Amino acid sequence: MNILLTNDDGIYAEGIRILAEVLIKSGHNVTIAAPDRERSAAGHSITIREPLRVKKIDMKIDGVNSYMITGTPADCVKIGLEKIVIQKPDIVISGINNGPNLGFDVLYSGTVSAAMEAYMMGYNSLAVSLKYNGNNNYFTASKIIEKYISENDFSLLSDKVLLNINIPDLPEEKIKGIKYTSLGTSLYEDTFEKRIDPMGNPYYWLTDGGGRKEKAENSDIRVIKENNITITPLQLKLTNNKLKEELKERF
Amino acid sequence: MNILLTNDDGIYAEGIRILAEVLIKSGHNVTIAAPDRERSAAGHSITIREPLRVKKIDMKIDGVNSYMITGTPADCVKIGLEKIVIQKPDIVISGINNGPNLGFDVLYSGTVSAAMEAYMMGYNSLAVSLKYNGNNNYFTASKIIEKYISENDFSLLSDKVLLNINIPDLPEEKIKGIKYTSLGTSLYEDTFEKRIDPMGNPYYWLTDGGGRKEKAENSDIRVIKENNITITPLQLKLTNNKLKEELKERF
Repeated sequence: MNILLTNDDGIYAEGIRILAEVLIKSGHNVTIAAPDRERSAAGHSITIREPLRVKKIDMKIDGVNSYMITGTPADCVKIGLEKIVIQKPDIVISGINNGPNLGFDVLYSGTVSAAMEAYMMGYNSLAVSLKYNGNNNYFTASKIIEKYISENDFSLLSDKVLLNINIPDLPEEKIKGIKYTSLGTSLYEDTFEKRIDPMGNPYYWLTDGGGRKEKAENSDIRVIKENNITITPLQLKLTNNKLKEELKERF
Repeated sequence: MNILLTNDDGIYAEGIRILAEVLIKSGHNVTIAAPDRERSAAGHSITIREPLRVKKIDMKIDGVNSYMITGTPADCVKIGLEKIVIQKPDIVISGINNGPNLGFDVLYSGTVSAAMEAYMMGYNSLAVSLKYNGNNNYFTASKIIEKYISENDFSLLSDKVLLNINIPDLPEEKIKGIKYTSLGTSLYEDTFEKRIDPMGNPYYWLTDGGGRKEKAENSDIRVIKENNITITPLQLKLTNNKLKEELKERF
């Protein structure tokens, strides 16, 4: 397959390097177009005010063409697909992110926004995140992704896919399996910690407080806790049609 | 009504000031929690790595409490609702943005992401954008918004609202009316312009190229061109359930 890779941890991050190595060794054609630095929590932002620089770099991965870009993950996908790739990729993969992207996290996630951008442009795309806990199982996660895209033919489906994939940071034998999930809808609790600086002035730091109390059993947030890989297919149907009809009637 | 205002053009922008003045003069309680500087195209990003500062400032608008925050629009809403407001607002308004937010723009828009954040936290919220063309009709737009929220009782609806509102930059008499629309789904064309810098190196600048060729008649992109105000109710149902069932069956 022809594959375009990006991420939001930056082009020199471990997750994208290991994924690229696994994919190229399995016989795929791999191009990397990724940010020059970490862009976590960049959300779905794009760069308008400033120009973008694209620099070809040598990542010392045989056969992989790598481009470092002074932009956000969404920028990298946009410019990667429009200006860098020679052959249209069969799939765009964003990751492997150093940390999970579950539930409403996807709205803030640079990793997922890059995959969304590719999907909007008409490509099959995956956002892949490792629920990092210090064990760095990027190699296992990369093999799982390679196997998944090789064994499954997306063209059999009725529509393009935008899959949000989260993988436990575990060795292969401890991972139970793949589950198709829904995005959790719970929010973090107690999210700002107030502190006082040395001058006596207050400042606030975002924390994930007590985590999230997710009720939905089939949600990614709950299912990954049982050591499953979660795959949530996403859509961008943002218009609330039901409410539109109500508003027309009542207002 | 108790109203929390934010924006992505920064707290000193014209759009939020005029809206605050119109709302307070109409008898509402208004609190402003807005970024210290322009944050356009910040997307739905949040600040994790750095602490946030909150500074009370005097905007010289009688009766309005104003807080300047070193964060993104979504940060401002989060901290505004959790740490700043004393009474829970009846509605959160983000804007008035200096430029339209139509179609998939909402995914990149700081203005809309702030309203999304409020909606996720359980509040009725509006994202308000002026389709700016140099005529600065913020006052007209502000009066329209004030009238809309005063005349319509959101509690009559079956769900909380997240409304993406775009207003033509025209005097009141030239605006035809309010239309409830769907988000357009067209993409910009020809989006990167390649240039050469004085050193002979290439760089790329994002442009809106030939604009968007939107087909859907009821889309915000088309409806606003006929000098209507567009109101699109949004939802955050991001899981593609149809595809989830297909994936379970086939893969």
